[in-house]
Parts: sequence; C-alpha cells; structure tokens
Amino acid sequence: MKKGTILSGMRPTGALHLGNYFGALENWVKLQDDYDCYFFVADWHALTTGYEDTSEIKNNINDLVIDWISAGLDPEKCVIFLQSSIKEHAELHLLFSMTTPLSWLLRCPTYKDQLNQLKDKNITTYGFLGYPCLQAADILIYKAGFVPVGEDQLPHLELTREIARRFNYLFDEVFPEPQAILTKAKVLPGTDGRKMSKSYGNTIALSDSPDEVRKKVSTMITDPARIKKDDPGHPEVCTVFSFHKVFNEAEVPEVEEQCRGGKIGCVQCKKNLANKMVEHLGPIYERRQKILENPGMVKEIIANGNEKARKIAQQTMEDVRKAMRIDFI
Amino acid sequence: MKKGTILSGMRPTGALHLGNYFGALENWVKLQDDYDCYFFVADWHALTTGYEDTSEIKNNINDLVIDWISAGLDPEKCVIFLQSSIKEHAELHLLFSMTTPLSWLLRCPTYKDQLNQLKDKNITTYGFLGYPCLQAADILIYKAGFVPVGEDQLPHLELTREIARRFNYLFDEVFPEPQAILTKAKVLPGTDGRKMSKSYGNTIALSDSPDEVRKKVSTMITDPARIKKDDPGHPEVCTVFSFHKVFNEAEVPEVEEQCRGGKIGCVQCKKNLANKMVEHLGPIYERRQKILENPGMVKEIIANGNEKARKIAQQTMEDVRKAMRIDFI
Ligand code: SF4
Ligand code: SF4
Repeated sequence: MKKGTILSGMRPTGALHLGNYFGALENWVKLQDDYDCYFFVADWHALTTGYEDTSEIKNNINDLVIDWISAGLDPEKCVIFLQSSIKEHAELHLLFSMTTPLSWLLRCPTYKDQLNQLKDKNITTYGFLGYPCLQAADILIYKAGFVPVGEDQLPHLELTREIARRFNYLFDEVFPEPQAILTKAKVLPGTDGRKMSKSYGNTIALSDSPDEVRKKVSTMITDPARIKKDDPGHPEVCTVFSFHKVFNEAEVPEVEEQCRGGKIGCVQCKKNLANKMVEHLGPIYERRQKILENPGMVKEIIANGNEKARKIAQQTMEDVRKAMRIDFI
Repeated sequence: MKKGTILSGMRPTGALHLGNYFGALENWVKLQDDYDCYFFVADWHALTTGYEDTSEIKNNINDLVIDWISAGLDPEKCVIFLQSSIKEHAELHLLFSMTTPLSWLLRCPTYKDQLNQLKDKNITTYGFLGYPCLQAADILIYKAGFVPVGEDQLPHLELTREIARRFNYLFDEVFPEPQAILTKAKVLPGTDGRKMSKSYGNTIALSDSPDEVRKKVSTMITDPARIKKDDPGHPEVCTVFSFHKVFNEAEVPEVEEQCRGGKIGCVQCKKNLANKMVEHLGPIYERRQKILENPGMVKEIIANGNEKARKIAQQTMEDVRKAMRIDFI
C-alpha cells in the first residue's frame, strides 16, 4: 500500500549537475518506493523563460530523462511523462485561469524576484505571470496529495492549495489540497566554492565520467591559507570539505581533525574524496552507459508514462467538467 | 471555390434576440455560401465572466445552436462546433500565453472598459485578462483569413494579428494575419426604445412565436407627441419606425410620409410592421419547431462539427509544435 500520490517535475534546461541531484532527484529515487509518483519533464514550463530559443529543448528532454534513469528512477515503479504530451494540463490551466484572481499571481513573491533576476530576458509575458496556474494544473490533475519542494517553493504550493480550495468551493469537492514534503537540500558548492551553476562553469554534471569527476575534484578550491602540507587547515572555508560532508559523511570528523592538525595534504584529501564520489556516482554512470546503448529507450519510457498519466488526467478532467457543469458532450 | 476561411463564435449566454441576429447571425448565414466557415459555441469564453454560476451553460449551448440552425446556418455548409470540445484551443492558448507580452493585454481598450462595466462581478481574474489570447488561439488554430467583427472588436482582432506576427517571427511562418470583415450592424432598439438588452426586458427573441412578435410590436413605444390618428408624427423618435427600416426597407419612404402627414394611425402602422416581421421571422420559427421535434439533433450537429474542427486544429498544432521545436514525441 502506497502512502499517497506525489507529483514533481523538472524543466529540460540541460544536463543535471550534482546540485540538482542532491537538491531533488536523489530524494525522488527514495520516494518512488513509498508513493505513487508522477515525475514529468516540464517542457511547457521551460517556455516561460526560454521561448526565444527552443533549439535545444528536444535534446534537453532526452538528456533529462537519461539523467533521471541513471540516477535510479525506475519506470516500473514511477510514472515518467512529458508535460506537453498531456493536453489535459492545458485544459485545466485554462479553466483555473478563469477562477484565479490576478492579484494572487501578482503578489506571488517569486514573481517579482524572477522578473528582477532575469531582467535581460523578455519574460514579462502573460504566461510567465500565470506560471503558478499551470503548476497548479500539473499537480491537481493527478490529485496529488504530496509535492516534494524546497523551502523557496512553498509560496507556489500555497497558491496551488488556494486554487484547489477555490475550485472546490465554487463547484464541487474535486481536488485535494496537496501537502509539502520538504526536501532537506544538501548544499553542494561549485568546484570554485561559489554556488554550483552552469553559468559559472563550476559544475560537476551527473553525466561526468569517473575520470572527469577525479579531474574536477583535483581542481577544487581548498583553504587558501594552507601552503605546506603541515599547515593547519580550515575545513569550513574549503570546497573539498563541503563535498566530504555529502559523499563521505562517516569520515567527516576524521577529515576535519586531520585537516586542522595539518596531518593530511590537500592532494591526498582530494583523492579520498574523489574515491568516495566515484563510488557513489559510478553506478549512475554505468546505468547511463547502458541507456546510451539503447537510443530508443527514452521515447519508449515517455510513451509508456504518457499513457498512464493521460488516463488519470482524463479521469480528473471528467470530474472537473462535471463539477463545472460544462460537460455538454 | 471558396473565398477563404472564416471563424466566428458566440458565447452561450441565453436565447438570442433580434439585436444579436441582425448584429451577426444574419451575416453568418450569408457568409456560409462563400467561405469555409467555422462557427463555434464559445463556452470557455462564457466562463471568463460567468464562472460563478455555470448552472445554465448546457441549456444555453443547446439553445444557441437551435437559434443558429433556425436562423439558417446549415451544418452541411459550415462547421458548427463547441469550443471546449477542441482541447487544442487550450494548448495553443497556453503556447501563445508564453509569447504574449503582458502589456499587450493590459493596454487592450476593451479590458478596462469591461472591468468598469462589470464591476459587480468578480472578473479580475487571470483568464479575463488573457481573453484575447484565447481568442487568438480560436481564430488562428483554423488559420482563418477572415473574421466577421463589429467596429468595437477591431482592437481584439489587431491583437490576434500581433500574436500571429510574433509567433511567425519567433519560430516559423505558420499563421496568416486574419482580416476583418466589418459587419454593418443594423441598429434595432428594444421595444421600449432603449438598447435591446435582456437586462431591460425589452427584447424580441429569435425564438418568439409569430403571436408573441405581434404582441410585442403592439406594445412598442411610438412618437409620444401623437395623440390623435391625424396628428403629424416624428418617425425619427419612434421605435416602430426603426423596425420598419430593418424589416420593411422598401416601404420606409411611404411609412415616413404617411406618419409625418398624419395619414396613418400607429395601430395600423404597427400591424403593417408585425406582418413584415412575421414574414421574415416565420421561416425561422418553423425551422425551430422542426428541430425541437428532434431533441438529439443539436448534439449530433456538434459532434459532427467537432470532428471536422478537430482535424484541422490537430493539423495546425502539429505545425505549431514543429515550428517551436517542441515536437519531441
Ligand atoms: S586537507 Fe582537505 S579539508 Fe583541509 S583544506 Fe585540504 S582539501 Fe580542504
Ligand atoms: S405612425 Fe408608425 S412611425 Fe409614425 S409614430 Fe406611429 S408607429 Fe411610429
């Protein structure tokens, strides 16, 4: 017996890095055992900020699903589907647009934040403003009771709950009010110590080979005060140490002690880390190689997932039309 | 060889009156011979201002199609369909929402007008603002080259043209820029001389029987200065005369002359008008009686029309997805 239905998605915007993996995907892999999970590639959402150049979307969809499967999502256990394949999301989005006050969207804290952050992009569109409406449709069309989110996305989920409440109040009790499953994101900096981000060129991709991982670890920024091997180190300012905390949790006290005591060189410390990382990431890399041998696999996974998702979405839309009394035919 | 493709729609908000008939429907009946016409029941649009009470939508859909067929729309000549049955409208609406600047919608002259007019209704919703986006999808999904509109709707059509231009510019030349076919609306006041409107209770419905028409004509407000039959009349202030101009065009000079000369009584003048109206509206009323004998007919007409409309809409969406390069599956 599963504990409930979960929905979550990612935008296809390029290869996932370890920040994304530990931010969400690692958690998804755990959740698929206990919940009925629907994981979708949010290609329509990718358009809200990326409509001006869509040349990479198809590649990115493909890569994203490969990342997911490599990381351990199992299409036998969870439903993996493509948002734009399930037209019912667009229908429900349209219906929600009719009942959602403009003010709810304008006051959404992330709306103005993003407008500021992406000033160089032309995103002051109708669809960008309405993004939470589409998100509500994505979630509610599967009557999902749970949504894994980070702290920063709680206002969006609250909006989804409000949209569900308003629908239920206006028409009929069709939707649950989904609860947050808060993801404790493990914080992983980029190799240069800043936030891991493609735009900084400081990422380790989930698709990096063990050799690439080792090479990137070797270039990581460490404590700049350590010149000689027996200088006492300050792990709290060292990127390598942040990675130990994620990939080598058990030995963290030991690493810290050795570093502070000047008992280990950074080269050796990095080698230890790289070994642990390859141990963790190796199976992911191997799964990827198998998928790459079978180029039709991603489309097949999506086609199967679409079919399962569509069935549920269609059922929900029947309930919705009936509740709204627009089920003429 | 048809002259092109036309799209137009009406909201299912209750029985059509003669103002609606002469404002648009009479023109549709003519257009169906020369153009590939798509006429749709805009039930999703009805939600933008009527989502709070949807109890009558299904009846209104039924009544609207009966009005159309009675008036002479011929399902063999034109495609009659239901907007909410063609999910592709919602998909295209969503895609247009991504590329439509918010400012285009906010500056639309009818937007603020309507907000003011409908102050008592709770219509400051996201969907109400985006109404022209849905309208653009309705029109462009059939690649309609022509749209019959009244003067007041020209700004909306211009917005549709801008949305088409922007799509073609961003992605690929998929859409035509539809042209207006300006409808010279014949002006028909209500029986009390004010604007014909259900809220004033002064309408003559397209479904009124000949007897009802005669009765309503007999109550029409005439020139209040005429007390006796041989008082000289002022046809320019007389409701009956406005109706003569529409239903009895040929005899207008004669009516005017007789009225001004006090040569005809208002009772007689009304009788003459009523005869002409029944002559014009009689066939409409008779067609209605036939449809009412066959209660399954409306659903059948819509189901057939939906099928034809859906085929075109699906083709267009294939073009759209290809142009946007989101045709992953
Ligand atoms: S020993 Fe390890 S933790 Fe200490 S500064 Fe060097 S790399 Fe960082
Ligand atoms: S005679 Fe006819 S036109 Fe003149 S006032 Fe009477 S009803 Fe009107």
